[in-house]
Amino acid sequence: MPKPKLFIPGPVDISPATFEAMSAPMIGHRGKDFETLYASMQPGLQAIAGTARPVFLSTSSAWGVMEASIRNLVRGKVLNLCCGAFSDKWFDVSQRCGKEAEKIQVEWGQPIDPGAVRAKLQEGGFDTVTLVHNETSTGVMNPLSDIAAVVKEFDDILLVVDTVSSFSAVPIATDELGIDVLLAGVQKAMALPPGLSVFVVSEAALARAESNTDRGYYFDFLEFAKNGAKNNTPSTPPIALLYGLQHMVETIMAEGLEARYARHEANNSLVHQWLASNGFEHFAPEGFRSRTLTTISNNRDIDVPGFVKAVREGHGFLINGGYGKIKGRTFRISNMGNETAESIQDLLTALNEVLPEFLG
Amino acid sequence: MPKPKLFIPGPVDISPATFEAMSAPMIGHRGKDFETLYASMQPGLQAIAGTARPVFLSTSSAWGVMEASIRNLVRGKVLNLCCGAFSDKWFDVSQRCGKEAEKIQVEWGQPIDPGAVRAKLQEGGFDTVTLVHNETSTGVMNPLSDIAAVVKEFDDILLVVDTVSSFSAVPIATDELGIDVLLAGVQKAMALPPGLSVFVVSEAALARAESNTDRGYYFDFLEFAKNGAKNNTPSTPPIALLYGLQHMVETIMAEGLEARYARHEANNSLVHQWLASNGFEHFAPEGFRSRTLTTISNNRDIDVPGFVKAVREGHGFLINGGYGKIKGRTFRISNMGNETAESIQDLLTALNEVLPEFLG
Repeated sequence: MPKPKLFIPGPVDISPATFEAMSAPMIGHRGKDFETLYASMQPGLQAIAGTARPVFLSTSSAWGVMEASIRNLVRGKVLNLCCGAFSDKWFDVSQRCGKEAEKIQVEWGQPIDPGAVRAKLQEGGFDTVTLVHNETSTGVMNPLSDIAAVVKEFDDILLVVDTVSSFSAVPIATDELGIDVLLAGVQKAMALPPGLSVFVVSEAALARAESNTDRGYYFDFLEFAKNGAKNNTPSTPPIALLYGLQHMVETIMAEGLEARYARHEANNSLVHQWLASNGFEHFAPEGFRSRTLTTISNNRDIDVPGFVKAVREGHGFLINGGYGKIKGRTFRISNMGNETAESIQDLLTALNEVLPEFLG
Repeated sequence: MPKPKLFIPGPVDISPATFEAMSAPMIGHRGKDFETLYASMQPGLQAIAGTARPVFLSTSSAWGVMEASIRNLVRGKVLNLCCGAFSDKWFDVSQRCGKEAEKIQVEWGQPIDPGAVRAKLQEGGFDTVTLVHNETSTGVMNPLSDIAAVVKEFDDILLVVDTVSSFSAVPIATDELGIDVLLAGVQKAMALPPGLSVFVVSEAALARAESNTDRGYYFDFLEFAKNGAKNNTPSTPPIALLYGLQHMVETIMAEGLEARYARHEANNSLVHQWLASNGFEHFAPEGFRSRTLTTISNNRDIDVPGFVKAVREGHGFLINGGYGKIKGRTFRISNMGNETAESIQDLLTALNEVLPEFLG
C-alpha cells in the first residue's frame, strides 16, 4: 500500500523540492561552506521568529530544547502551564531534571487563563514559566500575548514558549512580547522532516544560564551563543535537514509571511466549515483555536479508528484519531505546511464520502 | 564552484540511492508504519554492533549520547581516557555535568595504554570509564579489547565506548567485550548525513541508570529502553535519516560485514602506501592506526592549507588539513563509507599531481 498523504499534526507532507534540496552533497561542518549555509538562513528565521536575535539550530527534537530550557534557566522554581499532553509532560520533565516545579493544570481542551498565571506567580518563588503556545494534542492556541504580559509584570521571571506547531503559521513577536526562550520543531508548519529544532534565547536568559551550573554541554545555551556567533553549532549539525531548512526559509520568504499566515487561516477555516456542516463540535473553545490543526470532538460518536482507516484506505489521506487520553473522543486534522485550499478541499471531499458509513 | 567529493573524516559522500531512500514520504512516528521501519533495522544494527541487545536511535549527534552516558551512569567518579580532541573533550563534558572526573592523558598521536588504565582504576573510586575507540583527530585506533579486559577486572565499573568513526568499518564485539554503552554517529563509516546516533546499553548500565536521578528525560536510557521495546523512540525521530539508515543497513548486510571490513582495510592500505612512497610519516604508531582514516604527519613541511586548497580546486576532492592544535602539523584522509579502490586511487592520483608544487 502506498504511503498516505499526511494530514496529521506533524510530520506533514514534504515537497519534492525540499527533498531535492536535502539531497545536495555533504559539506564539512567546520568550514566556510557551512558558515555560509548557516548565515544564509538567519534573516528569514529571525523574521519568522519575530526577533533581532540569532536563531540557534539544535540537532534534536523540540523536547531537547524544552529540557534544555529547564536545565539552563531554572534556579528556584519553575511554573509549568499545563493544558494538554505536551504541556503536561513539561512538568514531568522539569521534575526529572531535579527542579522544583509547580503547575497550573487546566482541563484538556481549555486554554491557560492569564489571570490564574498572575495569581500563581504572586505566591512567589518562581523564576521560570513554561508555555506551549499551540497545544497540538487538544488544538488549543493559548493567549500568548496576554500570558507574556502577565509574566513581564514580575521581575526576573523568564518565559519559555514552545511554538512547535505554530511557528511560521501565525505571527510570533518574540522580542516585542519579551519571550526569553522561543523554540520550535521543523516537522510541523515548516514542512520539513523531523530531527531539527530552532530556538531563540534572550540576553536575560543567557545571563541566567551563565550563573547556572546544570547546563551540561550538549544543550548549553552559552555554547549555542558562542558557536552561533561564528555561524556554527556546538555539535555536529544535521546537514541534510539544514539544506531543507534553507530551502523552506527561502520558500516562506518568497510566499511572504502575511500571505503564509493568511493561507493557514483560510485552510483552517475550510476545516472549521466542514465541522459545522457535519454537526461536529470543536474540542477547543472559540477564540482559542489553533490555526494549524483542528481537534474535533467526537460528539456524533463515530468509530474514530474505523473512520481514520477508511479515509486512509479509500482515499490515501491520513488524519489522526486523537492523542493520548482523548484518543477516539477526538480526532485531528492538520492544515499546516504546504497545504492549499485545493489540497484541503480534496481531503474534505474524501471525508464527506466516507462519513455517512459511520453515522448511525 | 561545485561541491567537492569528500575525503574528510566525516561527513563523507552520500550515495544517490541513500538520498532516494531519504526522500520517501513521511509517516507518523506513533503508528505501525514507524514500528515496522524501526524493527526492520534491528537485526542489521545488532550484527554491526556485535550485540544481541536492542540498538537505540537517538535524535542527536554522538555528543548527546556521550553526555547522556555521563548523566545516566556516573555516581561516584568517571575516568576519561584522553588521547585526542574528542576523548579530551569528554573529560570537560563530564565536569560540566557536575561529575567528579579524572583522566589519563596521553600525548596526541599516542594510544591509551591498558596497563595505565589498570593502575589508575586500582586507585579506587571510579564507577565509569570512557574510551574513544578511533580518535578521529589523531588517527589512533585504541586497543579496545585489551582496555575492555582491564576494565572488566574490576567490579561495578562500566565501560562507555565511542565508536563514532569505526562503527561498521571494523568488528566491534560489544557483548563479548562487556562494553556497557556502545555509541556511534552515522555520518562516518555508515555514510549517512549527520543528525542521528545509534547506541547499545548493557543490563548493568540500565540498572545503574535506574538508581541515578540525574538522567533527565531527553537522554534517559530507561526511556530509550521502554520505547525501544515497542520499536519506538522517546522523542520524535529523524524519519528521513532513518529511511537512509534502513537503506544503509540493507546495503551493509548485502555487502557482508567481513567484506566491508576487508574493503575498508584495503582502501586504508592504499593511503598508507601513498604515504610511504611520498616520504610522509604516520602520526599514529604502527599497530594503533585507524582503518577508516589516516592522519599524516607533515614531516615534509608542506603548506597544508595550500595543498588542501589545490587538491580541492584542481581536482574536486576535499581532504582535511588537520584538527585543532595539530592543524597544519598533520593532514587527514578518510577512506570510510562507500569508497572503493578506484575512488581512493582517483584521490591518490590527484594528490600525486598536486604534491610536487608543494615540495621544496
